[in-house]
Amino acid sequence: MSRKQISHEQGVIYEFRPDLDAIAEIEAGDQLRIGTRDSLDGAVQSESDLIESVPDEVNAATGPIAVAGASPGDILRVEIESIELAEETGRVITIDGFGLLDGEPGIQAPETRMTPVEDENITFEGIDVPIDPVIGTIGVAPRRDSYTTLVPHDHGGNLDTTDMTAGNVAYFPVFQTGAMLAMGDCKAAMADGEMCGTGAEIATEIDLTVDVISDPAVDLDRPMVETPNAWKTIASAETMEEACKLANRDAIELLATEHDLSTTEAYMFSSLVGNLEISQVVDPLVTVRNSIPKSTLTSPF
Amino acid sequence: MSRKQISHEQGVIYEFRPDLDAIAEIEAGDQLRIGTRDSLDGAVQSESDLIESVPDEVNAATGPIAVAGASPGDILRVEIESIELAEETGRVITIDGFGLLDGEPGIQAPETRMTPVEDENITFEGIDVPIDPVIGTIGVAPRRDSYTTLVPHDHGGNLDTTDMTAGNVAYFPVFQTGAMLAMGDCKAAMADGEMCGTGAEIATEIDLTVDVISDPAVDLDRPMVETPNAWKTIASAETMEEACKLANRDAIELLATEHDLSTTEAYMFSSLVGNLEISQVVDPLVTVRNSIPKSTLTSPF
Repeated sequence: MSRKQISHEQGVIYEFRPDLDAIAEIEAGDQLRIGTRDSLDGAVQSESDLIESVPDEVNAATGPIAVAGASPGDILRVEIESIELAEETGRVITIDGFGLLDGEPGIQAPETRMTPVEDENITFEGIDVPIDPVIGTIGVAPRRDSYTTLVPHDHGGNLDTTDMTAGNVAYFPVFQTGAMLAMGDCKAAMADGEMCGTGAEIATEIDLTVDVISDPAVDLDRPMVETPNAWKTIASAETMEEACKLANRDAIELLATEHDLSTTEAYMFSSLVGNLEISQVVDPLVTVRNSIPKSTLTSPF
Repeated sequence: MSRKQISHEQGVIYEFRPDLDAIAEIEAGDQLRIGTRDSLDGAVQSESDLIESVPDEVNAATGPIAVAGASPGDILRVEIESIELAEETGRVITIDGFGLLDGEPGIQAPETRMTPVEDENITFEGIDVPIDPVIGTIGVAPRRDSYTTLVPHDHGGNLDTTDMTAGNVAYFPVFQTGAMLAMGDCKAAMADGEMCGTGAEIATEIDLTVDVISDPAVDLDRPMVETPNAWKTIASAETMEEACKLANRDAIELLATEHDLSTTEAYMFSSLVGNLEISQVVDPLVTVRNSIPKSTLTSPF
């Protein structure tokens, strides 16, 4: 089966809306190669290119892609096979009014540093950083409200989650017919937290396989990601405490179902196994994961 | 060299104060075996033992131990060699008014579940959970203010950090002559987050070696922990966002020093390497780590 190519030149979105129009239609099970531009649409090509404020349009997401047969209540399964860098350099920037330490002593904004690609690494000021690509923005058409591609929420969006990487599988609730998958805003490398507000932003080619899980055993309210060793709930909210609550509640529901525990018992159990993890602390909503090892949670859907 | 035994029967504290009186004195380089009681002082021995509210005295910390030669400005180095469980069962509890999901639908408090020790596992409602012990409360005499053993702060205290485990090395600022090390509140297993407010609370015997780093290359303001692969700053604050800021600022200072970067460059660099991690989200202050791989940060002190 040939891999279907979908380029950012065919269309990108800067807002996940309930009523998106597809730029491409695929079948469940199709293998895709998706081209993404960098989150800043090529505006930063050297250290003299400074971004004075968060652009109105940022994190261009290639798509939306309609998946035949995906209906509200289903789960969209996105297996991320590889993420190849598609340009010779990334860039990391600070923007005034954005980032964990924005406005604190010694923190300058705007600043730009380029991160050239050299074999297995990018370099930052001459220091090697292993290439470990991340899809920053990935999601589907939301249920009711619209969200710019700067915002993460229950539809996905700007999750900035390091687990959105090759070898893992992302799951999204299907809220609208066709699901309407879109993605972009990739990084050559990024820390959990994305403290300064960006990773090493870069254009990519993403190979993935998209599938639909119909009539899942549980209702999925928010995205999840499957790694080789763990299932992770993902939740975004105004504060990290609120995001932790949502991610933990979702994990508890899965643990209670699998092990036939009461809600309170699953809560206690969650306090023994797995881990709360930070995705990002800089976007308009922050994002947290609750990771449960597969030894404890074998089959959530 | 024989290992010095220090039992909780010799003395425990429920408050880290600047003016602590030592129950034992040791030399730098001494090997210790420290006995700790469970965080609830033995009050919970079966599922019918319920804790109605957070006790005034909780997390008994064996000590304080005065370390000869430790002076303000030094760093106390605590190498955790092993943590052996010292009773046949742990316990996980909920307490009204405490825990991430306290008061939410379906969450009952007070509740108790026992977690019997069986070979390499504890069990929770018959489900195996690998034993992976954690020292919940560990710290030194603070600089100025006093903190009960329920509270984490710059002196350590109730950090509830899973990295406080065998094979790792904890570092604390020395604020007072002799440092005054104390520890307790161990768990047989605990998730990052400690969502329900406890892990599997249990008595232990901890083997460790204590040393003093005089005239360190950097001022240490807060605890750190060294794992086989990473150096982690640790910060506690009212909100997770504030704790993230402190943990990130500390990491930035270390990265700037090692790589001769400006503060802004180190901030950008931190957004590419390492990870913000959650220790606990339930104590009166919450605790976050910023983990930097040793490939990037070789020698902070």
